[in-house]
Amino acid sequence: MSKEIPKNFNVGICGLGTVGCGTLALIQGNSEELYRKLGRNLQVTHVATRTPRDDINLYGVKVSGDIFDVVTDPDVDVVVETIGGFDPALDLVLQAVENGKHVVTANKALIAVHGNQIFTKAQAKSVTVAYESSVAGGIPIIKALREGLAANKIDWLAGIINGTGNFILTEMTAKQRQFGDVLIEAQELGYAEADPTLDVEGIDAAHKLTIMASVAFGIPLQFEKTYTEGISQITPEDVVYAKELGYHIKHLGIAQNSAKGVEMRVHPTLIPSSDMIANVDGVGNAILVHGNSVGATLYCGPGAGAEATASSVVADVMDIARLDSIDASAFAVSGLGFRNPYTDVQIMDIEDISSEYYLRIQVQDKVGVMARITSVLQDCGISIEAVIQKEAVSETLPIVLLTHKVAERDMNKAIQLLEDLSEVSGKIARIRVAPFADGTI
Amino acid sequence: MSKEIPKNFNVGICGLGTVGCGTLALIQGNSEELYRKLGRNLQVTHVATRTPRDDINLYGVKVSGDIFDVVTDPDVDVVVETIGGFDPALDLVLQAVENGKHVVTANKALIAVHGNQIFTKAQAKSVTVAYESSVAGGIPIIKALREGLAANKIDWLAGIINGTGNFILTEMTAKQRQFGDVLIEAQELGYAEADPTLDVEGIDAAHKLTIMASVAFGIPLQFEKTYTEGISQITPEDVVYAKELGYHIKHLGIAQNSAKGVEMRVHPTLIPSSDMIANVDGVGNAILVHGNSVGATLYCGPGAGAEATASSVVADVMDIARLDSIDASAFAVSGLGFRNPYTDVQIMDIEDISSEYYLRIQVQDKVGVMARITSVLQDCGISIEAVIQKEAVSETLPIVLLTHKVAERDMNKAIQLLEDLSEVSGKIARIRVAPFADGTI
Repeated sequence: MSKEIPKNFNVGICGLGTVGCGTLALIQGNSEELYRKLGRNLQVTHVATRTPRDDINLYGVKVSGDIFDVVTDPDVDVVVETIGGFDPALDLVLQAVENGKHVVTANKALIAVHGNQIFTKAQAKSVTVAYESSVAGGIPIIKALREGLAANKIDWLAGIINGTGNFILTEMTAKQRQFGDVLIEAQELGYAEADPTLDVEGIDAAHKLTIMASVAFGIPLQFEKTYTEGISQITPEDVVYAKELGYHIKHLGIAQNSAKGVEMRVHPTLIPSSDMIANVDGVGNAILVHGNSVGATLYCGPGAGAEATASSVVADVMDIARLDSIDASAFAVSGLGFRNPYTDVQIMDIEDISSEYYLRIQVQDKVGVMARITSVLQDCGISIEAVIQKEAVSETLPIVLLTHKVAERDMNKAIQLLEDLSEVSGKIARIRVAPFADGTI
Repeated sequence: MSKEIPKNFNVGICGLGTVGCGTLALIQGNSEELYRKLGRNLQVTHVATRTPRDDINLYGVKVSGDIFDVVTDPDVDVVVETIGGFDPALDLVLQAVENGKHVVTANKALIAVHGNQIFTKAQAKSVTVAYESSVAGGIPIIKALREGLAANKIDWLAGIINGTGNFILTEMTAKQRQFGDVLIEAQELGYAEADPTLDVEGIDAAHKLTIMASVAFGIPLQFEKTYTEGISQITPEDVVYAKELGYHIKHLGIAQNSAKGVEMRVHPTLIPSSDMIANVDGVGNAILVHGNSVGATLYCGPGAGAEATASSVVADVMDIARLDSIDASAFAVSGLGFRNPYTDVQIMDIEDISSEYYLRIQVQDKVGVMARITSVLQDCGISIEAVIQKEAVSETLPIVLLTHKVAERDMNKAIQLLEDLSEVSGKIARIRVAPFADGTI
């Protein structure tokens, strides 16, 4: 080695919320194990927080009220950003990079929305911005995509990447409960925020999917082009009918790379009940990845929580410390995994994407209604794979259909025509079927 | 960067069997994708094989009859060893390292038995010996243990790590078939070797478990201390009774680190049927890892096959190419993941390990037989959790028991006393229950 490697590797943490405190506790609690692995002492030397706490061990740690004090501290080797949001997180990260400091962040929104700018600057400054903890908590999925499966052209990936949503759907499936009831319970249990929009409307999942798609396919981050649909419209009836048809309903992020372009979409999805990923329950996360050489691989684990997220934060810190220890002049793997990303790949509009569909149509109990519905579908080029028709319990009854593959544009047209029929009451429920029947584990 | 990085990164492959040909085909077939990731051309420049083949593309590749020609080729940056076995694989790897060349190997027996010697020499020579493909085929489990979960103290891991054995048990479970019948089918399908000993007696799984335990716990490789038991004694009756009790029988490798010492054991295991890992079927592999910060994570995928194994071989080659590209003076992660391994950790004798047990005891249909059995167990300090007693179909009938936790030493004593009873016919079937009921996904 060409330089003397210091005995210590110093971590500065900005923000002492759940993830910040978890990171501090992990580095303190596992210090002997970390030393055994690195051959150096990994230690937190500086934290910044606006709300000091008495319940954590800050012995020997410098505490600042201003997060920007950490990024200018000459003794800090790596800055851990755990404040979340865009402002001042973006400025903080950019300034740390400007100062030649490596950064580890758990901030999925920041990476999904501002990652292109951040990685460009990091490359120019020869520092690392690592973000394993921003996707799927404790599951090392970024490392799997960027390094473990690097030899593959990734065909597609699909993941349960929002624990809150998965908890709600699991409860709805197990107990036929209403979405709203379970959401309140999830808030009481601390699984959902007071404002649950980011989780239940799919925005959090879309941030994570955007990041995974870029790493998998070698394309710039394009959060604004990810189709996003939440789970708030799913009813207990849909869960029951899906089960009768042999499916579980899960909230999936799906990214697919084909000759037609790249698909990025987050929405409720019917998955064959026998698939392993259909049986990932509660707040767990799971990501199925299909590579052109390896085939299908599956990664499951905790997607949130202080300790699980800290596991990934500190793994990133250790990667950086290991490279620092061999005097590497730059990070070995580029930010999104590709030295030469494609910059002109078409992200497909949801209307151009073909799926099989589950439809639940509430109709009046009249002779010939089924014939009219099938006629409309036929006119739109949509053929039917399975039907469930229930007894009328009031003036209307549900017809549940599973269709063969059709472009979303044609399905939208069909749904509009169907909703215009006098026999059809209210809105039609529509859920896409998972596209990966061939590649399951 | 302090030196000019050559445009090409050159791979030499020793042996053109399944994995060697798969590696060649993958590097050729995904060349554009690999270039996009590395910013350099990854190319096979030299192969050595004793049996040249016409069905593969060797245009522009130097072909030698002597594998040692590859390790002395000054243009080869990394040597891929796919010949298998110990002789001449060990000499080949040691000589490549001596010549300052990085090595990638899929040879689990070589690493498990001679890895300590190999990694010591590699460290002295500042080269990498990478072996992701030696464990669980295409699943990047070494990377997950060594890097992705590096922040954790790994408590335990348990894996289905032999596809042949899992295929046989899956068929026996689905169709109540006999071990011997399914083995013949597995041989016809190419899932089992003509001599199936390595697979069905657990030796292959023990090689892989030995490697994972060292990487997880930071201890030297100690294959000779891994307790190994195969699946050839499992009967269709056991599969059926286990199911009645709520379990699947899987062939597991289990490594656990506790205050008592390290457990390393490979044997048939009862797993609660609702656990995800109990439902990994066919030739698939799956590894459950429990870290003290992240909790439980699960990794599933293909454990064998040319393309899946090549995926991991080429990922290792790319890791090496990436570090070469930043002029790193040595590999960032040490061979087994720890700069300071423990060298004096006690590997526990199987007799000192406690398990719950499944017992199947064939008894004569006499009054009081159950009382005598429970009395013997009670005298040995063994309490019973569940019992299945079947109608006699001949002169004897099976009694199936599930016990509470007991040390193997006490269970061995109890089984000997039971087999000595005049009412007991033949040998008692004994299967251990998985120890990870609390940490499942």
